[in-house]
Amino acid sequence: MKIVRDRLSKAIDSGCVNLTIFGSEFQMTIDFTHLYSYRARNLVASEIREILKLMTDPEIISFAGGMPNPDTFPTSIILEITEELLLQPPSETLQYGITEGQTSLRSTLADLMEKRGAPCEPENIVVTSGAQQGIDLASQLLLESGRTVITESPTFIAAIIGFRGYGADIHGIPLDREGIVIDLLDDRLKKHARSDSRPTMVYVIPNFQNPSGVTMSEGRRRSLIDVANEHDLVILEDDPYYDLRFEGDHQKPVKAFDDVGRVIYAGSFSKILSPGLRIGWITAAEPVARKIAMIKQTVDVCTNVLSQGIANEYISRGHLERHLPKIRELYGHKRDVMLSSLEQNFPDGATWTRPEGGMFLWVELPEAMDTDNLQKHALERKVAFVPGRLFFPDGSGKNTMRLSFSHPAEDKIKVGIARLGEIIREELKEG
Amino acid sequence: MKIVRDRLSKAIDSGCVNLTIFGSEFQMTIDFTHLYSYRARNLVASEIREILKLMTDPEIISFAGGMPNPDTFPTSIILEITEELLLQPPSETLQYGITEGQTSLRSTLADLMEKRGAPCEPENIVVTSGAQQGIDLASQLLLESGRTVITESPTFIAAIIGFRGYGADIHGIPLDREGIVIDLLDDRLKKHARSDSRPTMVYVIPNFQNPSGVTMSEGRRRSLIDVANEHDLVILEDDPYYDLRFEGDHQKPVKAFDDVGRVIYAGSFSKILSPGLRIGWITAAEPVARKIAMIKQTVDVCTNVLSQGIANEYISRGHLERHLPKIRELYGHKRDVMLSSLEQNFPDGATWTRPEGGMFLWVELPEAMDTDNLQKHALERKVAFVPGRLFFPDGSGKNTMRLSFSHPAEDKIKVGIARLGEIIREELKEG
Repeated sequence: MKIVRDRLSKAIDSGCVNLTIFGSEFQMTIDFTHLYSYRARNLVASEIREILKLMTDPEIISFAGGMPNPDTFPTSIILEITEELLLQPPSETLQYGITEGQTSLRSTLADLMEKRGAPCEPENIVVTSGAQQGIDLASQLLLESGRTVITESPTFIAAIIGFRGYGADIHGIPLDREGIVIDLLDDRLKKHARSDSRPTMVYVIPNFQNPSGVTMSEGRRRSLIDVANEHDLVILEDDPYYDLRFEGDHQKPVKAFDDVGRVIYAGSFSKILSPGLRIGWITAAEPVARKIAMIKQTVDVCTNVLSQGIANEYISRGHLERHLPKIRELYGHKRDVMLSSLEQNFPDGATWTRPEGGMFLWVELPEAMDTDNLQKHALERKVAFVPGRLFFPDGSGKNTMRLSFSHPAEDKIKVGIARLGEIIREELKEG
Repeated sequence: MKIVRDRLSKAIDSGCVNLTIFGSEFQMTIDFTHLYSYRARNLVASEIREILKLMTDPEIISFAGGMPNPDTFPTSIILEITEELLLQPPSETLQYGITEGQTSLRSTLADLMEKRGAPCEPENIVVTSGAQQGIDLASQLLLESGRTVITESPTFIAAIIGFRGYGADIHGIPLDREGIVIDLLDDRLKKHARSDSRPTMVYVIPNFQNPSGVTMSEGRRRSLIDVANEHDLVILEDDPYYDLRFEGDHQKPVKAFDDVGRVIYAGSFSKILSPGLRIGWITAAEPVARKIAMIKQTVDVCTNVLSQGIANEYISRGHLERHLPKIRELYGHKRDVMLSSLEQNFPDGATWTRPEGGMFLWVELPEAMDTDNLQKHALERKVAFVPGRLFFPDGSGKNTMRLSFSHPAEDKIKVGIARLGEIIREELKEG
């Protein structure tokens, strides 16, 4: 007991102490939040994570998650490739890799970018630990306190949290059916030109945008480049859903219209192979790619080498091309079921997007509705979604919601949407 | 040609243009370094990387790399575990994981920490993409421009580059045979107490330190905690080599003497399983672990789930315990060969450490020697090492060098050290 008392008094001498009692044990921890960096103090927990934590109940029909459907994971192909990779000289697959990414995968990704309409050299590619790391590395490159980043509004929650974590201000520009409204963007940038916190980056998700499901038209993509050139800023193009197109023709990436290296393109294998393998990439002008690799070197040395090998063989052996139709069919059907369920169950005054691909659609309810409230009632009735407010940098959008159709079975989609429609009607009646 | 001219003039209008000519093709890229963040501008390429690039010649005997020997990779065990993991419901292994790390691996790591003498709960663990990410996340938590970090001198190059990248000043404290010299550390901290750039963190590698091979004594470990308590700073304990002990008894981590949660411990699987799988972990007080997970969430969502599964089964099925003796024997022999080669070939006035584990030893040559010069001559004679200067935050140590014994075959070690000895003798003669 004396030791404990000595330790305790020593601890108390040296700062603020938290005492946690577990039965007869206790844990003392110094509070050293006063030593945290500005960045660490700025970072907040993701509200969506907290919502997802509520959903341990397997009876809940969830339209909340952003996870791909595990039925789309090509397990046996992954296993087959892994066996071959591991039986090769192990110095390759199990050893430290190259920070920029394995040479073979970078070549394969340069070919993939050419197929997408934005040809590049392997030197323009940096393999990342998922597209999230691509977004983060671009943020580290361009953002800091006093900088502004322009996003679509609504936009990807993790991007909002990430950008804020670097101390950047975020200005959201509304979307319409063709994507980010260029005139509003241009106006905003002209205003900013006369202010201190000059935007350095505009962040867009041109295909089947998360959360709205909207796809940017080719005209807008071209205009976006013009605006970025005029106002001297970098475009961060986040394109994780490119291959999940169920209908219509592929659109060339914004990067395809970029003659001068203004676009940093972030791609991902999470939706076409597996998110657990954490493989993405960025494509950028060579000096930018080199600088990003320099940051990555200090951040995690290199991306998982086994996963890089799996991703490379998955594409170069033609598995991706053969597997994509299955993924598209699965998600396309689910979207159709959700759209017809919405048509049948949601009241007049509710509108929604009709995405040509991806995993999400976006609902606007009558002005009076509050989807935070709705979410509480829905959870009681075992249905989950994400309130739209979370996707707006300015916290607006109280009457909106994101519905993900990638995960639940088709009959669950029908039941879940019917229940949601019922709750909405009830709330509208109560006024 | 008109299009090209239009594009070019548009590009020139909008900023500084780099023109690169490839045959008849050319690539224009805007120089947007003026948009880079302070952090991005601060980061420099690793000189050690440049040295390693020189070594594509397979005839070179390299004591330069810090890579584990691929003969230590348990390939067939990894393959066996992977097969089982992939045949389980794929939602687990291929899906997004938990940011803090998979529950099973966190439990296993809590047990491992208990075996190392620093018991903790799974809630104290965050799985990272290698120990490098552990160092980086701790840096993000505590460092920024205007902050100071204290390190051992010499210390790990990637830590120096990483800390500088966050704008922190680095002050190195000399090592002796027992590790960091606590009196000098205490003096330095007392001086800093009266200055603006207050240290927030002290970074140490207590076991078989990279680059010196020195192990910190238990007395120093205890004193380090006292000093950190007195001066209110966080200890970042980097312990990637713990299990690579060839002789003597395991030392308890600094974390074992930490009653109040001042130590962030960074562990790694890179040297005992595989670096290509990129698995490490941090152990920290619960609120600190939570904050670090919050940062990790925005940085890369989660660590590779397949690799986490492999690491977990590798330990919990007892493979690690069975495999470690082989790794230790391999490295222990190589160290012995290097030590006796040094004894036979290096001139009087040269001294070196005798590490009880790890992958490196450290040589001090007579004052007059310059190992940058030596490195050039050695490369001509097909031997490589890393000049010691790179490991000193203040760029001193011109007469020192790091020799890695983990990789070359034993006969290559003999030949390489003999050649080095010869070159050193020649240079000493020339004066």
